[in-house]
Amino acid sequence: MRYELFYWPSIQGRGEFVRLALEEAGAEYIDVARERGRGKGLAAMQRLMAGPELARPPFAPPFLRAGRQVIAQTANILYFLGPRLGLVPESESARLWAHQLQLTVEDLVVDVHDTHHPVASSLYYEEQRDEARRRARYFTGERAPELLGYFEQVLQANSGGRGYGVGRRLSYVDLSLFQVVAGLRYAFPRMMAELEPTLPGLVALHGRVAKRPNVAAYLASARRLPFNQDGIFRHYPELDRG
Amino acid sequence: MRYELFYWPSIQGRGEFVRLALEEAGAEYIDVARERGRGKGLAAMQRLMAGPELARPPFAPPFLRAGRQVIAQTANILYFLGPRLGLVPESESARLWAHQLQLTVEDLVVDVHDTHHPVASSLYYEEQRDEARRRARYFTGERAPELLGYFEQVLQANSGGRGYGVGRRLSYVDLSLFQVVAGLRYAFPRMMAELEPTLPGLVALHGRVAKRPNVAAYLASARRLPFNQDGIFRHYPELDRG
Repeated sequence: MRYELFYWPSIQGRGEFVRLALEEAGAEYIDVARERGRGKGLAAMQRLMAGPELARPPFAPPFLRAGRQVIAQTANILYFLGPRLGLVPESESARLWAHQLQLTVEDLVVDVHDTHHPVASSLYYEEQRDEARRRARYFTGERAPELLGYFEQVLQANSGGRGYGVGRRLSYVDLSLFQVVAGLRYAFPRMMAELEPTLPGLVALHGRVAKRPNVAAYLASARRLPFNQDGIFRHYPELDRG
Repeated sequence: MRYELFYWPSIQGRGEFVRLALEEAGAEYIDVARERGRGKGLAAMQRLMAGPELARPPFAPPFLRAGRQVIAQTANILYFLGPRLGLVPESESARLWAHQLQLTVEDLVVDVHDTHHPVASSLYYEEQRDEARRRARYFTGERAPELLGYFEQVLQANSGGRGYGVGRRLSYVDLSLFQVVAGLRYAFPRMMAELEPTLPGLVALHGRVAKRPNVAAYLASARRLPFNQDGIFRHYPELDRG
């Protein structure tokens, strides 16, 4: 199966959680909006979203085409891909648990996005800077410690912090937690310097994931977009802890 | 199977999407935090969340206990319940599509919540009223029309606006869209008065769902909590369209 991923071509964003799963699994895929040629590129993605071709249209990217199926919503895409890529245990209860954790990652992603866009995605950061400061103070002081503490607890309960989040093998949840740690280190370095001593399992997991051969090769490649000020994880020093 | 739903006892909130599914299906369930007695009530729910009893703890309510399984995240609960309650078509592709729509409903729910709490859930509305006005203007002017327009398009494509959102029978997605229309009418009556002429399928779906015998009996019962100023859908006239 050759998968087609549709996502904004210049940011990691939500698409990155899907890219990491495809890369770790060595899956054959096209990052459609980042390629050139017929039926590719950003314009092709936008045409597909706006047009009548899709019987089940996505509200927003990312979405994945797998044969005749088109699937949107990041966590839903990973739920679909998990068993196909060997990135989740097979039992229904483990799949639901992994999905539950992924949806909680999504909650964190929304919170991170709203630190710099608390009013409107369609306005510039500079147009909502005052609101962003208040929202970010709440995020760095309350929400981030709560959510990261929760994931740490899950890792400790599953593997004593020396293994993975779900079951005994790597799952897409671990890849997503890697991305969360990497993104928060970029966006909120002072907060992370203070929190990391309380998150030994998460920090160790980030390190282990980064060293996996396929992930390491991906991170070193041009396919891995750098963090930047257009994505979800953005570094505005004034939003970090003081 | 007797299900146990755990959710805040005084609001509809996210729990209501699960309650509607259980009620429509005539499922046997206990709304644990709203009952009294041993192992029931709000304190029992909080003890369960904080204690070591659950191997797979939820980050937040709602969560559902079904035998030995405990499942959190609203859309995940509905994904689990859908086939068990006959509220989703059986094929994997239809289940993923229903789930994708439900996750988009969740996106709207987050947006509604953030109209009155754009800074922090832990602060009172009155402490973030200025930010709320700006965020609500974006919601009523851009996001709500976009999201509702999307659901209208889905209804029109599936059934010409005369049937359901997924397949040929009622699904939990339809129950959730009913709740969205009901909640938005309560919270943003002026916005809805202006938008509804453009949303004939959604408005008709709301009416059809409200008349289903089990839903109608539930809505007329004391089990249906009224909308109030502590839930997700709140009526602050200053946040509605002018």
